[in-house]
Amino acid sequence: MRLVVLLVVCVFASSGSASKCESNGVWTWLCKNEACVKTEATKGTPAIEVNTCKLTCGRFSSLLPKPSGTVTIGTSTIPFLPSKVQLKSVKCGSASCPSRVKWLVENAFNRLQNTLTNSYLGISKKGKRKTSFFCVKEANQRTVEVNVELGTTHSKLTLGTDESSSLTIGSDDSTVTVEIEANTFFGARHAFESVSQLTMFDEAHDSLQIVDEVAIVGDKPAYPYRGIMLDTSRNFFSVDSILRLITAMSYNKMNTLHWHITDTHSFPIEIPSVPELHKWGSYTPERIYSHEDVKKIMNHGLIHGVRILPEFDQPAHCGEGWQWGPSKGMGNLAVCVKKEPWQKYCVEPPCGQLNPSNMKIYDVLGKIYKTYFDLFLPDIYHAGGDEININCWNTTDEITDYMKEKHGGVSEKHFMDFWGGFLKKSTKKIIEANGNKEIPLILWTSKMTDPKYLNKFLDPKKHIVQIWTAANDKQIPNLARNGFKMIFSTYDTLYLDCGFGNWLTEGNNWCSPYKDWKMLYMNDPVKILKHQNVTMTDAIRKNILGQEAAMWSEQVDEHSSEGKIWPRVSALAERLWSDPSHGWKPAVNRMVTHRERMANRGVQADALQPLWCQQNAGYCYYDPAINKGEHFMI
Amino acid sequence: MRLVVLLVVCVFASSGSASKCESNGVWTWLCKNEACVKTEATKGTPAIEVNTCKLTCGRFSSLLPKPSGTVTIGTSTIPFLPSKVQLKSVKCGSASCPSRVKWLVENAFNRLQNTLTNSYLGISKKGKRKTSFFCVKEANQRTVEVNVELGTTHSKLTLGTDESSSLTIGSDDSTVTVEIEANTFFGARHAFESVSQLTMFDEAHDSLQIVDEVAIVGDKPAYPYRGIMLDTSRNFFSVDSILRLITAMSYNKMNTLHWHITDTHSFPIEIPSVPELHKWGSYTPERIYSHEDVKKIMNHGLIHGVRILPEFDQPAHCGEGWQWGPSKGMGNLAVCVKKEPWQKYCVEPPCGQLNPSNMKIYDVLGKIYKTYFDLFLPDIYHAGGDEININCWNTTDEITDYMKEKHGGVSEKHFMDFWGGFLKKSTKKIIEANGNKEIPLILWTSKMTDPKYLNKFLDPKKHIVQIWTAANDKQIPNLARNGFKMIFSTYDTLYLDCGFGNWLTEGNNWCSPYKDWKMLYMNDPVKILKHQNVTMTDAIRKNILGQEAAMWSEQVDEHSSEGKIWPRVSALAERLWSDPSHGWKPAVNRMVTHRERMANRGVQADALQPLWCQQNAGYCYYDPAINKGEHFMI
Repeated sequence: MRLVVLLVVCVFASSGSASKCESNGVWTWLCKNEACVKTEATKGTPAIEVNTCKLTCGRFSSLLPKPSGTVTIGTSTIPFLPSKVQLKSVKCGSASCPSRVKWLVENAFNRLQNTLTNSYLGISKKGKRKTSFFCVKEANQRTVEVNVELGTTHSKLTLGTDESSSLTIGSDDSTVTVEIEANTFFGARHAFESVSQLTMFDEAHDSLQIVDEVAIVGDKPAYPYRGIMLDTSRNFFSVDSILRLITAMSYNKMNTLHWHITDTHSFPIEIPSVPELHKWGSYTPERIYSHEDVKKIMNHGLIHGVRILPEFDQPAHCGEGWQWGPSKGMGNLAVCVKKEPWQKYCVEPPCGQLNPSNMKIYDVLGKIYKTYFDLFLPDIYHAGGDEININCWNTTDEITDYMKEKHGGVSEKHFMDFWGGFLKKSTKKIIEANGNKEIPLILWTSKMTDPKYLNKFLDPKKHIVQIWTAANDKQIPNLARNGFKMIFSTYDTLYLDCGFGNWLTEGNNWCSPYKDWKMLYMNDPVKILKHQNVTMTDAIRKNILGQEAAMWSEQVDEHSSEGKIWPRVSALAERLWSDPSHGWKPAVNRMVTHRERMANRGVQADALQPLWCQQNAGYCYYDPAINKGEHFMI
Repeated sequence: MRLVVLLVVCVFASSGSASKCESNGVWTWLCKNEACVKTEATKGTPAIEVNTCKLTCGRFSSLLPKPSGTVTIGTSTIPFLPSKVQLKSVKCGSASCPSRVKWLVENAFNRLQNTLTNSYLGISKKGKRKTSFFCVKEANQRTVEVNVELGTTHSKLTLGTDESSSLTIGSDDSTVTVEIEANTFFGARHAFESVSQLTMFDEAHDSLQIVDEVAIVGDKPAYPYRGIMLDTSRNFFSVDSILRLITAMSYNKMNTLHWHITDTHSFPIEIPSVPELHKWGSYTPERIYSHEDVKKIMNHGLIHGVRILPEFDQPAHCGEGWQWGPSKGMGNLAVCVKKEPWQKYCVEPPCGQLNPSNMKIYDVLGKIYKTYFDLFLPDIYHAGGDEININCWNTTDEITDYMKEKHGGVSEKHFMDFWGGFLKKSTKKIIEANGNKEIPLILWTSKMTDPKYLNKFLDPKKHIVQIWTAANDKQIPNLARNGFKMIFSTYDTLYLDCGFGNWLTEGNNWCSPYKDWKMLYMNDPVKILKHQNVTMTDAIRKNILGQEAAMWSEQVDEHSSEGKIWPRVSALAERLWSDPSHGWKPAVNRMVTHRERMANRGVQADALQPLWCQQNAGYCYYDPAINKGEHFMI
């Protein structure tokens, strides 16, 4: 029945003007005081759909993360067809663009056009729009021309990459012109993402709409490292699901996928020079990332502006995949593998740690690093280093014998020296794998990053510390004061796996409760440091590289991960890009709209509110000062 | 590289015997003491894949819910091809089967064959299996013959429907024979589901496997009502997503989809006789369930053994869709719609309640009921009745004027009488809509179900009470003692939306924390009643119709609902079907395998544990008596 009504209205309308294809909805949305207000529609006046209204209502349109530079948003929108969008020019300053850079920009443009086309046709993971009735006449539509100008030809993302851009949209009767200026492809790519967010499919008009006038100048991220960690060892994630994650990250201008590839549970990556690792360590022969897979992921990362940062976690968190040493005459490469009762030897089953007393491990590690460096071409490298259980090593005779001989005992201090020796030897192999060049190493917080040992083993010029401990961890101010670069992944806010059941016993898991998007939004490393009495200096502020949300996978795999990651990480994305000085409330509208945008693009993001709240901005609040009517309930 | 190895092995193997297509995996699983133990494979001996091992290891194979009758499971499996599965006979006792029943059985068979084919080809929502290399020679494969014998020709699910069945699988050199006996199609359908669960795709052998000998006699559910509630008002769910939910329910032998269609937030169903309701009340013209949609859902429910139970929640929880009364000369049909500050007039924004003082509402309600009864052909009907806020009615002059006149005041007692009058009048219209026949009405717990009012307004012969309040609610023993039929949806276990963020303010939502699957598994209504000192009698036990998990949709829509529903409701399914006397531990293995099965079938179920636990049953435990090694962490 609806279909028929739409048809009649549209046929009627198209006999008039092409843009008058009206909805049969009862409601229209009018912008009042930066909010779109739901209002009864007047007959004869075209209704304005809520999301179209939001495009020009509010200082930051529906952009998420909100731009950090100066922002001017027009007051009306223009209907357009995705087929009319063209990449008109790509310039690299006065020089001609290298083909690689041109290819990257064209790729970003193609992605924009695909996004717009899918939005127009209502194509998402859920299938096509039910009523796809397009009453926009192609001939009458304006051309959308995109011009890109790059300041440099850099095409590798590093911590120093300039990701800034400026974006203008202007229009006349025949053309909408989009101008993107950036110093690198990566900045331009972010601007393409902004362009896509300045458009909406308008259900009421059955048309795409773009803001008519836009100027965003000097938009750039507050932090250079904006990450998500994915653990593919506890549960395997298919290549497709990793590609989807990267795509979704690009919608949020997140730039680093920290790939926790291996752990004690499985070793799912192909190491051709030591095939025993993946043969013994993968869950099944089908659950191994081939080099072709990794190249696909790397390429997808590059075109989406996302660094793929590999971690080989060591010397703890090594188990499955390391059992074959004795059978190949290599001795015990790892110890305590699957040792019971696990609670004595590790944090969760199965146990397992490398055996640094066996010199044969360094050759094997060197081969792993070489494979990783050949595949990932890292600018920074993650060397793990968390949760070493002394009791494992201390109950292994060959290790205690070695330690007594080389380190003179088995107290904590000796174990630290033992570990320090491992770090030294393994770092040498890492540098070799990197063509004998130094590379910044990321390490998780641990006793090694404790004030007691920090300066003995680590060097702020060489080591970056990823803080996974709680925000009140006393190590944090010391790291800052000692000039270490820091990535914040404080578990009490940034662990996405918290708040679900305990997978080993009854009750909920160790880091419960669930962390709401507002917590991620408000998680400000500067505040964390100040709260710990650190006097902020420019140097310390600069040493905060950024933050990373961690998707540990004991209780999640590709089937349910998207709803746990999104849209919570979108909130973190705004913190990292825009570093807002205000609270979460001004972000609610954009968060909800952005979440719907991601869902329409096929990301299985969780819902934040009833759709009613999106259509009635400002009504979904809670005011503790108002008496509840609850005691009147019958 | 793996592909090549597999190829070589398989080509080699297929030159010998067809069933010797070997995996290149390092591991095999051997059944020891009802657990599949991961063991290093011996060269020359075909490896056994963990899920194949589980088919014959353990008293209940990988069946979930576990059968309730007598169960015998064979000790080995037979490879087979889905194309060789045939429906050989369908009998209805001595009579010939009506075409409708035959069609239903054939449909259930086709679904089985589709499930097997998809499993064989590795087809799920995630796409086809990466390495699909099938080395099973068709000519050598046994035929799988399915015979179905039904005791009756019933084809409508009611509370009295016999859902029991018996299932045997036997085999000889040429044929695997599956015999299904049931009193109704619904019982037979459950047996088909069991058959599918007695098969696995074995990655190691690249083949489907079925248990060679099975006898399950007298398998039947402990409770006749096994439900999920879906709220499509707070957020809209597409028809496709509802069909997927029904399909997933059928994998768990859940039999009732309680559809909370409307609420204050939106009115998303087409009421042709009162089109204002969906025109004003739907979120967008695209977010309306047409009658074609509902018929599709009803049909899908029937063939999957799932009752579609509609709820029109009244007289509270009515808002959007009811605003047009004054403009059509009907007066205020609802009051307090979107009234502010909402906290005074309802439990969440937007507010809204019907206006029982306006006699015109009964005509409108009658038209809604008529539409519902025509579409849903219900055997039981849900009349809502929760969370009436007196303060809303009490601040509405036309209502207080009416009450003073008709009921003599505006105290709680008078409001109860006012509501009682509404219930009486609306029930009359419901009975009219049902062709002037009585129908059991389900009502949520409220003050009306309180001991103070229960017997004044409600009748155990006519009303079923759905308990949404906490398990310690003092109403519960009184309902039981007064002979009311009960459906348990105690929020402190069965609300699936708990444990996420508060959608109105900071912190987590009202019914936090998250309810783990083990809580649902252990939620036993008999224990709840005993704990409240109810002396259990056969009559009371019989009045426990079952339980229902509720997916309220303030913070979820189709994009993330599957991970919140599954596999938690699978645990509830076993409680409702098998009513186990043991705790959750004996169910862990089957739950984990079942969750993987659902994921492979395209259900985006959440993960319970690392895949490692599935491959190493028994190792993922927690024993509080064991000293942790944590203090040894460095």
